[in-house]
Amino acid sequence: MLSIAVIGAGRIGNIHARNIAAHAGARLAGVADVDMGAAERLAAACDVPALSLEAAFAADAVLIGSPTPTHVDFIERAAAAGRAIFCEKPIDLAAPRVRACLDAVKRAGVVLMVGFNRRFDPHFATLKRRLDGGEIGALELLTIISRDPSPPPPSYVVTSGGLFRDMMIHDLDMARFLLDEEPVEVQAAASCLVDQFIAAAGDVDTAVVTLRTAGGKLCQISNSRRATYGYDQRIEAHGAKGLLRAGNVTPTTVELATGAGFVTDPVLPFFLERYAAAYRAELDAFITAVESRKPAKPDGEDGLKALLLADAATESAASGRAVTVALDSVAKE
Amino acid sequence: MLSIAVIGAGRIGNIHARNIAAHAGARLAGVADVDMGAAERLAAACDVPALSLEAAFAADAVLIGSPTPTHVDFIERAAAAGRAIFCEKPIDLAAPRVRACLDAVKRAGVVLMVGFNRRFDPHFATLKRRLDGGEIGALELLTIISRDPSPPPPSYVVTSGGLFRDMMIHDLDMARFLLDEEPVEVQAAASCLVDQFIAAAGDVDTAVVTLRTAGGKLCQISNSRRATYGYDQRIEAHGAKGLLRAGNVTPTTVELATGAGFVTDPVLPFFLERYAAAYRAELDAFITAVESRKPAKPDGEDGLKALLLADAATESAASGRAVTVALDSVAKE
Amino acid sequence: MLSIAVIGAGRIGNIHARNIAAHAGARLAGVADVDMGAAERLAAACDVPALSLEAAFAADAVLIGSPTPTHVDFIERAAAAGRAIFCEKPIDLAAPRVRACLDAVKRAGVVLMVGFNRRFDPHFATLKRRLDGGEIGALELLTIISRDPSPPPPSYVVTSGGLFRDMMIHDLDMARFLLDEEPVEVQAAASCLVDQFIAAAGDVDTAVVTLRTAGGKLCQISNSRRATYGYDQRIEAHGAKGLLRAGNVTPTTVELATGAGFVTDPVLPFFLERYAAAYRAELDAFITAVESRKPAKPDGEDGLKALLLADAATESAASGRAVTVALDSVAKE
Amino acid sequence: MLSIAVIGAGRIGNIHARNIAAHAGARLAGVADVDMGAAERLAAACDVPALSLEAAFAADAVLIGSPTPTHVDFIERAAAAGRAIFCEKPIDLAAPRVRACLDAVKRAGVVLMVGFNRRFDPHFATLKRRLDGGEIGALELLTIISRDPSPPPPSYVVTSGGLFRDMMIHDLDMARFLLDEEPVEVQAAASCLVDQFIAAAGDVDTAVVTLRTAGGKLCQISNSRRATYGYDQRIEAHGAKGLLRAGNVTPTTVELATGAGFVTDPVLPFFLERYAAAYRAELDAFITAVESRKPAKPDGEDGLKALLLADAATESAASGRAVTVALDSVAKE
Repeated sequence: MLSIAVIGAGRIGNIHARNIAAHAGARLAGVADVDMGAAERLAAACDVPALSLEAAFAADAVLIGSPTPTHVDFIERAAAAGRAIFCEKPIDLAAPRVRACLDAVKRAGVVLMVGFNRRFDPHFATLKRRLDGGEIGALELLTIISRDPSPPPPSYVVTSGGLFRDMMIHDLDMARFLLDEEPVEVQAAASCLVDQFIAAAGDVDTAVVTLRTAGGKLCQISNSRRATYGYDQRIEAHGAKGLLRAGNVTPTTVELATGAGFVTDPVLPFFLERYAAAYRAELDAFITAVESRKPAKPDGEDGLKALLLADAATESAASGRAVTVALDSVAKE
Repeated sequence: MLSIAVIGAGRIGNIHARNIAAHAGARLAGVADVDMGAAERLAAACDVPALSLEAAFAADAVLIGSPTPTHVDFIERAAAAGRAIFCEKPIDLAAPRVRACLDAVKRAGVVLMVGFNRRFDPHFATLKRRLDGGEIGALELLTIISRDPSPPPPSYVVTSGGLFRDMMIHDLDMARFLLDEEPVEVQAAASCLVDQFIAAAGDVDTAVVTLRTAGGKLCQISNSRRATYGYDQRIEAHGAKGLLRAGNVTPTTVELATGAGFVTDPVLPFFLERYAAAYRAELDAFITAVESRKPAKPDGEDGLKALLLADAATESAASGRAVTVALDSVAKE
Repeated sequence: MLSIAVIGAGRIGNIHARNIAAHAGARLAGVADVDMGAAERLAAACDVPALSLEAAFAADAVLIGSPTPTHVDFIERAAAAGRAIFCEKPIDLAAPRVRACLDAVKRAGVVLMVGFNRRFDPHFATLKRRLDGGEIGALELLTIISRDPSPPPPSYVVTSGGLFRDMMIHDLDMARFLLDEEPVEVQAAASCLVDQFIAAAGDVDTAVVTLRTAGGKLCQISNSRRATYGYDQRIEAHGAKGLLRAGNVTPTTVELATGAGFVTDPVLPFFLERYAAAYRAELDAFITAVESRKPAKPDGEDGLKALLLADAATESAASGRAVTVALDSVAKE
Repeated sequence: MLSIAVIGAGRIGNIHARNIAAHAGARLAGVADVDMGAAERLAAACDVPALSLEAAFAADAVLIGSPTPTHVDFIERAAAAGRAIFCEKPIDLAAPRVRACLDAVKRAGVVLMVGFNRRFDPHFATLKRRLDGGEIGALELLTIISRDPSPPPPSYVVTSGGLFRDMMIHDLDMARFLLDEEPVEVQAAASCLVDQFIAAAGDVDTAVVTLRTAGGKLCQISNSRRATYGYDQRIEAHGAKGLLRAGNVTPTTVELATGAGFVTDPVLPFFLERYAAAYRAELDAFITAVESRKPAKPDGEDGLKALLLADAATESAASGRAVTVALDSVAKE
């Protein structure tokens, strides 16, 4: 049975470690973290040992959930050790650094899967499957709405790489996943409307992007760092034969009717709840890929391309010009 | 063009008079009422003369919207004068009196249509059409929910004939309309939960009925004299191949989302709003029937049968026993 | 940690065994079944030993998921051994036998919880909590719709005790749970419309019931053994201040729009999917009750009362008369 | 009573002429059209005389529903005659020509209202009222989706001025109406995906626009010339305290459930159905403004500003650059 070590005992490491521990097809080798106390607490909760980094890289596979700046080093170490790798997004905030890292992975010939978990959300995955099944004919207009319930803490904002690389990168990957054709042009507009500390940190909290593919498909993305009604996650695909959409998820179906109207639940609060099934499904996909020696998707190239789109959006928001991107050539470099 | 005189200048006479005045295929001859002031006000609003009762019966057709106790006399007078008749429900609260009246109509050979307006509601009429079109196969279970926003004034309750004859009679007609098979058995249970003056008047305000047809189809009806969220009017038909339902109607599609959830409008407040289109459509049907010399539906027999079901429900609620009814033989009497 | 042995390795035993195995607060002692092969297969899947019945009664608690005719014997054996007991519904199809069994449990002073799992469904449990919180004031009208996707096999129907005791018993328990006042009168009507083998077995497949409490609250229940659109499970509570309802659950939020309209998913197929969370939550409640030495709910008395209502409905459907029940005195007997 | 002459007996003239004829507070003076046959047919249907253009300008007010190229001449003639003017959008396709026309109106001191009918749609008007009422706090992100059921005929496309000036101009006006702050920057992207004759005519059929206000509010608009599921008209406003949205409208509430899922109606087919109430309400507003000698809204300046935004979008779609607009200075020129 595949043994997987988790590196990083924070919020996301917690999700993954518990999912591996509960998975019938894999074994949690242990948990490593530069904060040994955190590693020990999570390890104890999963009934496995806390590991040194050395020991972590001795497992069949590593799941990297540590802070972003550590990702490329850990990926390269794992690649050198010949381990299968699952890394949380983003691989790195600097595209050249990502390219170098992907080269190392390629040379090592190991599996690298990147944690764009939303591809595995049952609602979005079903939408993708039905889109591919031709239910709406050719896709023409894609709308992605993604709004966090509330802004992250100032400390996080400062090192996040900015809204486009930190938050919208998920939507940019989802756009590529659904458009089935690389975007060639990126237009962005952004503001700071939610909290002034975000502007002070040189970032934005409200942003929209338009993507255009070579074939003329258009995609609109809308992000906000605040949504009072929960974690707003919606996708709508408009095609020649109809429209397919996946909506928000609520905790219950309970509805109250009074003179004030009909009231249903707010949507699930944040990603832990909304994407609980997605995290399990992406782990499944990783284990299946490693066991079957098939390529894992989304892979490092997907990680790089989403980052390049985020870079282009960042540039467009600053310059007010559409930015041209050439993702088709990324794979060939 | 068909001239129609309206008898009764109250709330329901108002609706009908204005609809006739605006109808391209008929002419409002005038308005009559024992309260000449009321007749004059409504007539003025419609730009037609107030009429004496004599004059009203000189029009091609009469629309009777006066208080229930006056219905049979007016029907019989109109029949004797050879006029086409549209009468608001119920024809009368006493079945024998209704039978006598229907005999007079039959002898006169005039058209009599009864105002079960809900058959003409676009939502329910569409449900009926699709049911007849076989979309759910054989109907097996019918659910009718009908709840008024608030109880009528005590003065109304006292002369209403009771909830079953006054309010549920609409649902009993709708059940017959949709079941397409006469009920043979009626079970009822009722309470006074909304307002004690209703109990004091010997009536109930909360009531449920089960109908069973000879073929075994079952129908559940639920009535309340109070619904804080508006005039609740829903129908659900469950058949061998699926379910068809028609829901409530709201003034707008506007929805508000906050931390308290997603809030849509309460439903339309009462019958004037909910059944505005139905009143126009039933008038259309009446005019078409008279002009084309075809039978009008729902007719006097429908009015009688709904009353017999209401009588049976009243009896069952009192006795706790299922009451057998033989509506198939009504037409033959 | 509480050790629980599962008796019965069929469909329901499977659910419970796996839930116990995955529960952090209990230990699956093993699985027993008169069919040792079945016991061994389920035990192996859960990585525990197959047990003899003797060994099963040595665990701290037993979960009885064997066929209904064996329930009372197993309950009495477990009670004699001083074990905490979770028994699937119904305890038995004969009320006198249930009473005798409950006496034995009482004398032994052990915990007995009955598997009315729907009380633990997150949607219905939330509705109950909000109802108790006063959101709609006094409850006046309760509507319960419960329809299976398709009829059970003939072999099952023959020994099921009939629709009221086998299927509607869940709704009768739910009615008691929500009404918060015992029903005093039961009216039922039933037909065989889905499949004639059910009539041949002396049973019905389409049935409606009206319950009335001493305080005049009314409840309508509607059952069918067939629903083409999935496992239809809905509750609607109408009160003085508004309406609370819990609707069906669908696998995804995906919606397709074409010229044919807007299409959403059919509802979850059957109880395994719809009540997956409910099965886990009722196990939680059982473990908590046993560990904390508090009474478990729903208990044996709840099981008996739901059966008495099912008996009354069976009688009413046959006789066409409302049947009076005196559940308040059950506890005192 | 205000007499209004309708100029233009086409599709839109038809709507307005019938609404004026049915309006209690105005009188339809007659109908004029260069095609006298068309004028006579519509006039006959409304029971009024067909008019020469001279006679039309003798009424108290004129409603101009003739082809776009005739608008400015008719407006200027009406202004010279001192008549109140209601003109369908757009005033003209060339901004300088519009400016000159508005100057003439200003000098004449007459009322000019422009037919941005969607401001009067009960759903959108309610959304606006509630937005102004502060229900979601400060508006931050606005999403407008507007899709025609099918492309117009080639002959129409050629003279339409292009998608942005012909179709999106409605959404650009709606954006201004809701943002309550002038857009300062326009980004557009567009494709021809629906029908190649549109590309051959130098136009696009699928387009998205981003607007940005000085205060940083962002608005996304999405247009397509094809929607298989009806005339898609939706607005969503995201603010600091929540989200307000107005959805599509369907002919009935009827829903069918089968193994294929739950199916509701497609949305209303096109603007005649969807905006029937809006056309009546804008007429009401025009009559009220003229009678009360108050300014009419939306006025000529609104017409010009929407056109300037459409011009900017056309330019941005061609150049790939954000285009800056200075609408605040328009009023002062």
